[in-house]
Amino acid sequence: MSKIKESLVRCGAILYGDFTLSSGKKSKYYIDIKKASTDPKILEEVADEMAHIIENENIDVDRIAGVVLGSVPLAVALSLRTGIQFVMIRKEPKDHGTGKLIEGTLEKGMKVLVVEDVVTSAGSAAYAIEVLRKTGAEVDHVLSVVDREEGGREKLESMSTKLHALVTATDVLGSC
Amino acid sequence: MSKIKESLVRCGAILYGDFTLSSGKKSKYYIDIKKASTDPKILEEVADEMAHIIENENIDVDRIAGVVLGSVPLAVALSLRTGIQFVMIRKEPKDHGTGKLIEGTLEKGMKVLVVEDVVTSAGSAAYAIEVLRKTGAEVDHVLSVVDREEGGREKLESMSTKLHALVTATDVLGSC
Repeated sequence: MSKIKESLVRCGAILYGDFTLSSGKKSKYYIDIKKASTDPKILEEVADEMAHIIENENIDVDRIAGVVLGSVPLAVALSLRTGIQFVMIRKEPKDHGTGKLIEGTLEKGMKVLVVEDVVTSAGSAAYAIEVLRKTGAEVDHVLSVVDREEGGREKLESMSTKLHALVTATDVLGSC
Repeated sequence: MSKIKESLVRCGAILYGDFTLSSGKKSKYYIDIKKASTDPKILEEVADEMAHIIENENIDVDRIAGVVLGSVPLAVALSLRTGIQFVMIRKEPKDHGTGKLIEGTLEKGMKVLVVEDVVTSAGSAAYAIEVLRKTGAEVDHVLSVVDREEGGREKLESMSTKLHALVTATDVLGSC
C-alpha cells in the first residue's frame, strides 16, 4: 500500500499543501491522478496491486469496467495484467452512434468489477453500478486507486457494493 | 501482419458479408474494432506488432497519443509494452473542467506517435495531429491497427505524416 503512495508522491500525482478543491472545500492534499495513470511504470504498479487484491479477497471477475475517461487506463492495465476482458462505460451516449453506454462485450449474469481512479462521494462508481446492473450484470466490488474517505464507501455499501482502495486519505495524510 | 488479421477475424472484429456503412457506402467487410481492443489477448498482440514497427522503422517516440475513446486502449497497451508515457486527446473540452484537450504530460518539441484503431479518411488522426502540433509537439507518424485505404494515407501525407498500419483493406479482402 505504501509503495503505491510513494510512487504517487514521486511522480507528482499527490501534492501536499493548501488547496481549494473545485467543490470549494479546503484540502491538505491534491491528487492529480492523470499524472499517475498516463505513466506506464505507475500504471503497472497499480495494476499489480489491484490484481493482488482480486486474488487475496477471492473476487470473482468476468469483466473489468472503467468509466470514461479517467478509469479507462486502469481498466486496460488491469485487463492486460489479469487476462480478463474489460468494458468502458460512457457518461452519455456517443452522439453519432448507437447510443451505447457500454463499449465491449458483456453478458447477463456476468460478475463485473468496477475500477476507479479516485473515489470521493462515489458518484461515478454509483453511476457505473446502475448502468451495469440494468444490463443484468452483478456488481459487488469497486476497486479504486484512492479512497478520499468522503462518504464513498458508505454510499457504495448502501448499494451492496464493497469498496477496496490501494490508498486512503488516512494513508496520504499519515506522513504529513 | 496476417497473424493480427487472423486474430481479428477469430474474435469477431472483422466480419465478412454485405454491409452498408453509416456513410451509406457498401462494403464487403465490417470492422468492429472495439471487440478487439477490449480483449487483452488481441490488445497484447496489437501492442507487440506496433512495438516491432516502432523498432524496425526507427521511429523516435517521446509520447504515444490516442484520441478518445477508441484509441485509448491501444495507447495504454503500447505504453505498457514500451515504457513510453501516453497522452489522451479529447474530442471536446470536458464540460466541468479546465477545457484541456490533452490529458497527460507533454512538453514542447516532444516527438509524438499517434495511434489509431481504424483509419478511413483519417479525420480523427488529422485532428490529433493539429491539436498536438498547436502545443509545439512534432508528429511525423501515425500507427493504426487497420487502414481501410480510403484516402487516409494520402491525407496524412499531405500533413507530412506517414501512416503505418498492421492490417490494410487489401489484406482483409485478400482472402475473400
